[in-house]
Order: sequence, then C-alpha cells, then structure tokens
Amino acid sequence: MTTLNALNAESTKKLFSFDFIKVLLRGSGQVMFQNNSWTGLFFLIGIFWGAYEEGFGVVAWAALVGLATSTLTGYILGLPKKEGEDGLWGFNGILVGCAFMTFLEPTLWTWLALILCSALTTWVRVAFNNVMGIWKVSSFTFPFVAMSWLFLMASREMNAMPDTFLPSPHLPTGINEEISLTIPHLTEYWLKGISQVFLINSWVTGIFFLIGLFISNKWAGIWAALASAVSLLVIILFRGPGTEIENGIFGFSAVLTGIAIGATFYEVNYRSALWGLIAVIVTVFVQAAMNIIFIPLGLPTLTGPFCIATWLFMLPGFVFHKEKEKTTE
Amino acid sequence: MTTLNALNAESTKKLFSFDFIKVLLRGSGQVMFQNNSWTGLFFLIGIFWGAYEEGFGVVAWAALVGLATSTLTGYILGLPKKEGEDGLWGFNGILVGCAFMTFLEPTLWTWLALILCSALTTWVRVAFNNVMGIWKVSSFTFPFVAMSWLFLMASREMNAMPDTFLPSPHLPTGINEEISLTIPHLTEYWLKGISQVFLINSWVTGIFFLIGLFISNKWAGIWAALASAVSLLVIILFRGPGTEIENGIFGFSAVLTGIAIGATFYEVNYRSALWGLIAVIVTVFVQAAMNIIFIPLGLPTLTGPFCIATWLFMLPGFVFHKEKEKTTE
Amino acid sequence: MTTLNALNAESTKKLFSFDFIKVLLRGSGQVMFQNNSWTGLFFLIGIFWGAYEEGFGVVAWAALVGLATSTLTGYILGLPKKEGEDGLWGFNGILVGCAFMTFLEPTLWTWLALILCSALTTWVRVAFNNVMGIWKVSSFTFPFVAMSWLFLMASREMNAMPDTFLPSPHLPTGINEEISLTIPHLTEYWLKGISQVFLINSWVTGIFFLIGLFISNKWAGIWAALASAVSLLVIILFRGPGTEIENGIFGFSAVLTGIAIGATFYEVNYRSALWGLIAVIVTVFVQAAMNIIFIPLGLPTLTGPFCIATWLFMLPGFVFHKEKEKTTE
Repeated sequence: MTTLNALNAESTKKLFSFDFIKVLLRGSGQVMFQNNSWTGLFFLIGIFWGAYEEGFGVVAWAALVGLATSTLTGYILGLPKKEGEDGLWGFNGILVGCAFMTFLEPTLWTWLALILCSALTTWVRVAFNNVMGIWKVSSFTFPFVAMSWLFLMASREMNAMPDTFLPSPHLPTGINEEISLTIPHLTEYWLKGISQVFLINSWVTGIFFLIGLFISNKWAGIWAALASAVSLLVIILFRGPGTEIENGIFGFSAVLTGIAIGATFYEVNYRSALWGLIAVIVTVFVQAAMNIIFIPLGLPTLTGPFCIATWLFMLPGFVFHKEKEKTTE
Repeated sequence: MTTLNALNAESTKKLFSFDFIKVLLRGSGQVMFQNNSWTGLFFLIGIFWGAYEEGFGVVAWAALVGLATSTLTGYILGLPKKEGEDGLWGFNGILVGCAFMTFLEPTLWTWLALILCSALTTWVRVAFNNVMGIWKVSSFTFPFVAMSWLFLMASREMNAMPDTFLPSPHLPTGINEEISLTIPHLTEYWLKGISQVFLINSWVTGIFFLIGLFISNKWAGIWAALASAVSLLVIILFRGPGTEIENGIFGFSAVLTGIAIGATFYEVNYRSALWGLIAVIVTVFVQAAMNIIFIPLGLPTLTGPFCIATWLFMLPGFVFHKEKEKTTE
Repeated sequence: MTTLNALNAESTKKLFSFDFIKVLLRGSGQVMFQNNSWTGLFFLIGIFWGAYEEGFGVVAWAALVGLATSTLTGYILGLPKKEGEDGLWGFNGILVGCAFMTFLEPTLWTWLALILCSALTTWVRVAFNNVMGIWKVSSFTFPFVAMSWLFLMASREMNAMPDTFLPSPHLPTGINEEISLTIPHLTEYWLKGISQVFLINSWVTGIFFLIGLFISNKWAGIWAALASAVSLLVIILFRGPGTEIENGIFGFSAVLTGIAIGATFYEVNYRSALWGLIAVIVTVFVQAAMNIIFIPLGLPTLTGPFCIATWLFMLPGFVFHKEKEKTTE
C-alpha cells in the first residue's frame, strides 16, 4: 500500500519550470526505454514531422496533451517522484495521444476521453507493475495498449467520439498482395517499421527516431535498426500481406522487443544478442497472429505483440553472462 | 492447501434451521457487498417483482436455486464457515440463477447445468481469491461472470439447453438510436441501471434495491444512486446507443464499482469519493468496450466491466487518508 | 533467476546415446503425465498408425521433429536436467508437431516455423511455470496451446505457411446434427476421444494409447477410459453437435482432466475420484464454450479446455485425505 502525498509546494514549483519540460521529454524517450530528454526531443520532432506530412497534425498535438496529462497525473497523485522524473509516467500517455487521434475524430468528447485515458495509464501502470512485479518483469507499454483498446472499442458505441480510421470489423480471410522489393522501397518499409512505434507512417520520422536512439545509447539504435530489418526479412520470407509490410506494421513491435531484450534488460553480449534475435523473430509471428485475432473487432494491436513477445522471453528469468565470466565460475 | 472438513452434525443441523435462511439472505445482500439479511430480503423481493413483471417468474426461482446450491456447496465442501455465513458463498450463485434463466430456456438440462454452475462458483471463488489475494484484491463477482460466460457459450452447442434471449452473434457496427430524455424517462433509466445488477429490467425493482441498500449502509445507497446517475449522464453525453441506455445497461456495473470504491473498500472521505467518481466514469467506457468486444459472440458482459474497472482502481494499492489525519503525519 | 549452463561435453555425449531415445519417449508419455518410455513408445506407435491411416503420415514425422526439437532446446539452454530427462521438455513439442501438420501445409517454411515454435515451448514452459508456480499449479500443456494458437493464427497472414484444415472463420450458429448411437459407433467415439489427445482421429490409436497408459499406471488408464466415456455421455445427453461427437472432440480435454485430477495430482481415493468426476463433467462445458468462442477466428481449442478446467479444480488448493486418515485426525 502506498500512502499518497499529492501536489505540494515543491512539486507545484517544478511544474512551472524548465525541469518539467525535461521530464516530459524523457517521457517521450522512455517509449523506447531511453531516459534522455534529447532522445525524447528527436522523437517529438519525428512525430510532428510525420503527423503533418500525413496531413493529421492533430496527432502530434494529441501526443503532447497525452504526455502532459499522464505526467501531471503522477504529480497530482503524489506518486514517488523518481520514476516520474525519469519519464516513466509519460510514455504511456504520449502513445494514448497518438492512438486516439490516429483512429478517432478529434471532437470535444474525444479530447476529454483522451485526457481521461492518458491519466488512467499512470495509475494502471502502478497496478500492472504491482501485478507483474511478482515475476520481476515490467508492464512495458501495456497500460497504454490495454486502456486504448478499451476506449477505441468504446468509441463504436459512442457517437460523440466516432472512429475514423479504425479498421472495419470483418471475418479473417487469406490475403495475397504483391509487394515491391526494390532497395529504395525496402529502405522505406524498414524506416516505417521504426516510425510506427508511435503510430507514425513516415520514413523521415524513422530517421529522426534512429538519431534520437543513437544519441542516448548506441546499442538501442543498433537494435532498433536490426530488429526492423530482421522483422522485414522474416515477414517477406513468410509472404505476409503487402500493404501491411509497406506500412511498417510488422516492424514496430519487433523494434521494441529488440531494444528491450538486446539493449535494455540484459547485459549486451553474444548470448543476449542471440536471445534478442530469436525474440525479434517470434515477435513477427505474434504480430501476425494478433492482426488476425483482432480482425473481427476491427481493433489495432497497438504495441501488444511487443509486450507479449518480450514477456515470453523475460519471464523464464534467464541470465546471460559473458563468456569470460562463465569460465571463472 | 486447505484440509476440508465436509458436512458434519453441527452444520447439518444448521441447514434445517432459521439460521440457514439468514445465511441465504446475506448471500443475496452480498451481491452489493452488504452483509445484511434484511438487505438481501429486499433484493429478493425486487427480483421476484421484476421477474414476474417481465413475465419470466422462472428467473426469480432460478435465483433462489442458485443461491441455495452455491451456499450448500460451501457446507458440503466444508469450507471455513465464517465466510459462508456472511453470505460470501451465495452471491455468485444467485447471479448464476438470474443469468441462466434470463438467457436460456428452462429445460430439465438447463436446470441441471444451473445447479452445476452455481456449485462451481463456490470453489472457483476460492480459486480466484487464491490467485488475486496475492495483490490484496478480491475476485468480486468474477466467479459468476466467468463461469456463466462458459455455460452460456456452451449452450450454443447444446441443443438440450437452448438459448432464448442471448444476443445473436454479428459483427460490430455503429449504432445511432434516438432516446427520450424527459425527466420521467430519465428516472426510469436511472432506476433500471440499479435493477440490472441482478439482470432485472424494472424501475420498481430498482427502488426495492435502493431501500435494501439504505437499510444496511447509507453510503452504499448513496453511491448506488449516484453511480447510476453519473453513468447515465456520461453515456448520454457520449451519445451511446438508445436501447441499451433505456434498459439500464450502462448502469449496473457502474453501480457496483461505485459501492465498491466509494463505500466498501476505502474509508469514506473526499479523496476516496473523488477516486470512486473517476472509477464510475471509467466503468462506462469499459462497459461500452466490452459490449462491442462480445458482439461477435453474442455474449452479454454480465458484471465483467465492474470487475475490470474496480481492479484497475484497487490494484495500485493507494490509500486515502482523511485530511485531518494527513496533517498529523 | 536461473544461470544457464548450456551444452557441455557430458550432455553432448548423452545426445548420441540410447539414453536420449528414452528421454524422447518419456517426453511422449508425459503428454498424459506418464514418466515412462514404454508408454511413450505406445503413444508414438498410436500416432504413426493414426497418421498413416488418415493419409497424413507427415503428422507423425512432425510429432517426432517437435519432440526432438523441444527436448534438444532444453539441453542447449542448459536447463536443469532432471526435468528434461523425465520428459518434461518434450511433451509440448510433440503436440506442436501434431498440431502444425494437422492444420498447415507442410512447406519448408511451415517446417521452420514448427521448429521455432517447438523450441519456444521449452522456455515458455519455464516462463508459465514461474508465473503459475506461485499458486502451486503447473502450466500443463498450455505452452503448446498458447504458442500453437499464435502460429496457427499467424498462418492466415503468411502465404508461405498456408493453412489446410483450419476451420474457416464464421459467426457462431446453432447446430443440430443427428448422430448414430449404436454400440459399435459409441465405442468408436469413445476411443477417438482418447486418440484426439494427440489430434489423431482413429479408434485404433485410442487402443494403443490406453495400452500405453495401463503399462505405466493402472489408474491413469482407468481414468482415461472413464473420462472419455463420461464426457461422451454428458455431451450426448446435452445434445451436442453430431460431427464433433463422432470425432471425439469432447473427449480429449476430459481425458487429460481425468488423468490429472483423478490419478496424478491427488491421492487416489473416493473423495478425489468424485472431484475428478465433477472436473471431467465441467471440462465438457468448457470445451463446448471454447469451441464456440473460437469460431469467429476459425481456431481449434487444442487442449486449452483441459488446462482451464483443471486449473479451476486445482487452484482452490483442496486436499483430499482418505477416510481412514480423517478419522485419526
């Protein structure tokens, strides 16, 4: 049980300072596990670029609102500050903002629901981490995923918050679509696999995201690039649906899995690299499965496949030592 | 591990006494968290009134059978008596009875399945509480919800237990229905939101339930009334489907969430009241989402949305102290 | 956290020995909880017989590949050897092999996915047991079930791994099919209920499986026979769909539940026998429900209903003493 110490003088002061902007930027960076405000800035630039390029600038502003709301919620609830100031209150909220305005019409009611849902992720993260902490794993982006699933589905019953680009519900059928495999096209799919982490469909945004990652952690950048490439290779070999491949749909969860397993939660070494590689490949199958499972509901998977695949590889609780250490055992 | 001490002389004696009737009535009351046999009696009167008003008196008798079966099962299994005699064996069973005869044809086989399913909830409650106890939350009505989902779905494969009023499976589509918003109509929807806790669609029943609550605990009554009103306001503002609003479909889970958070598991104070209010609002979105998610199966949500929403607000493990206490810290 | 000791000289030697064959056979036997290589041999003979009888010999070879892959994975990961050599690495893998080639076309890519999925079950079993171990229950065949669900669903998006006999997705509707109830036919359905544990539809295979069980443990054989008979009786009385009954679809999960509750995890006595009997009956309802729930996805339940039903009866943590012991308490 946590005794909450809500907003006090000190934290109120912080809210009106340059510090708060850095907290927000770290919240953006934490979507890909980077506690770095410069990384978060590049992510935000990428989001704004991509949103306006696609003609939906509102997505970027919604990302900001979600980020600020979920971060403020942490201060208002008086949750332990260390986590929040490392950006761990903000990363679910920024994704809620992206998801809401990607799939719903930006009415007044949608904005209100967005604010409620972003705030919700802050304590749902505490809830889920309480649950999963028993097995020493984190809830990752699952607070964003689960709460957005609920609100996106609710939108189908709520005419004041109508959906726009939610896929229309139908029964799963086979898909056989041609896909262009020239080098420029492949590069585009590869970069979109990275930009789709924030639901942005733009290869330029993918470059901004990569730069942001390399600023913070070389291995995070390498794994994002590698995971998007490997997932692209796997889904092309297994002949997945062309349109989804072109839009980077098989990349974003794999990118997060790659960074999580390859560069974040394990020591970087050959053994953990192999583990990360297998995890990335498995993520492609989880993504394909969840795409199909959600078709009758017309619901996007969001980063659910990343969460599930990464749990499957972290819950065994394996430890990968360096070879050197092993010989001294 | 629990060593079971099944039926012995003492408990057999109790079964044929006035005490047993009080145990049953408390089982009815515990559906809304009230360990009070008078409350339970008013709930039962409400159920009988509503069932006969709708022309399905069998629902009320099934409620009694479910209540008695699940309570007897506790004695037969020899579970620790304290819980059972507070009504905690009965509340899932009475709901199973209501659900079975609301959605299925009352054949001999349906009655047998009802008895099996009611009995099942008694040990499934032990199972679920073992699971969830780790995080210091209860399984609420989820034993009823989960087991009824299974048996209701099974009915589609079992011609000896055919369904009658289960919604027919289809793909989710947008719904835009007009709704009358006169004061008398709104009052009716508001009271039906309360009566639907037991799957009864009658405003008179809603009044009986409110009386039962106020007899036991003023705050429980206030929160039931408030939660039904707030959920009605939210779903009207977000322009939900008219027929469902008229039948109180957005009320019953919100009512249970309100009583749970606002008047049962937290100290009653301004902070917990605010927490309860947000929980009630979130319940409306969870209800809408689950309505949609279950459409392809033609499955009713039962009180699933209440369980999920309440877990989301209790699993963080927050504690809300009174202001006074806080200043002395 | 487990420090892994991967393949070393000793275990490499074991891989090229007669011991390894015994380990594989025990992996086959453990599908029905029998740590006995002769039992496993009879199961394999039954699989080969049934697969070739049905004209799909590839299923049997895939079973062998899955069994070997998941067992080897345990050695390669360096997991604690005792479990693996009791056959606990192999039982999920052999079922993955059966499921893949029952529902998918045996292309090169399907074989590669089969190998990945079988290997995956070995560490997913560690993951799931870490999760469920908290409540002192095992993950049973759920690693096979969950991972096969993912890969089978993924196949609908992957044209290089096309499905063949996956049911086609549709909305659930009532089914009313006649069924022949002569003694020879009933015997056939009863034996197929046992053979379907490995997704084999052959009464001869059912006999091989029964022999295998009786070799290892009389009670396991009795419970398999009893559970298939009881589940058949229940689904006929509740008038389930004829085609599914004829193919033993309501038997296989009940058989596993019966062996688990009646002959494996509890002391064999009258009380646990009654518990097992109720569990078998409940399994029929869980099976029927899951058949319906998965119809919109065209997904087979695999042995999911067994896992769910058995958890419902083991999670309460009841202990059943013999009558004699009870009187001395």
